Amino acid sequence: MTKFMDVHHGMHGITADQLLAAHKADLAIEGEEKVHFERAWADPASGTVYCLSEAPSADAVMRIHERTGHPASEIHPLPLVV
Amino acid sequence: MTKFMDVHHGMHGITADQLLAAHKADLAIEGEEKVHFERAWADPASGTVYCLSEAPSADAVMRIHERTGHPASEIHPLPLVV
Repeated sequence: MTKFMDVHHGMHGITADQLLAAHKADLAIEGEEKVHFERAWADPASGTVYCLSEAPSADAVMRIHERTGHPASEIHPLPLVV
Repeated sequence: MTKFMDVHHGMHGITADQLLAAHKADLAIEGEEKVHFERAWADPASGTVYCLSEAPSADAVMRIHERTGHPASEIHPLPLVV
């Protein structure tokens, strides 16, 4: 398992309720791909959302986000953490 | 105090030791700007580093990163967290 940071662009004006709803939708099905979304942070002004996950692959992360209707713009594996 | 995510591009091939050294350099002086760098994650393949901090402003985050020799490419406030 590896940590991943995925980034969503174009989410201008996202609200706390929308971020929570999207996160809950991911949590509801993440187990089917052995993904776990740990945290998500949003900057509504620039329309940027960051999701930190642990997963077997970037493809697994993307499949969950696609099924819940918010495909990521970028997904980066994070082999280094401090 | 607000959470911030700052992103460094162009860090291709960064090693665990280099990430740790950069993080420790930030921690050593962060108090002078009332910043705290909580975590940092790196993807050496794409050359991307993400730093999560709590700080009074994006400018304060940037001043610490500039003084330690690694100015951020982007800094985003994160008013929403789940």
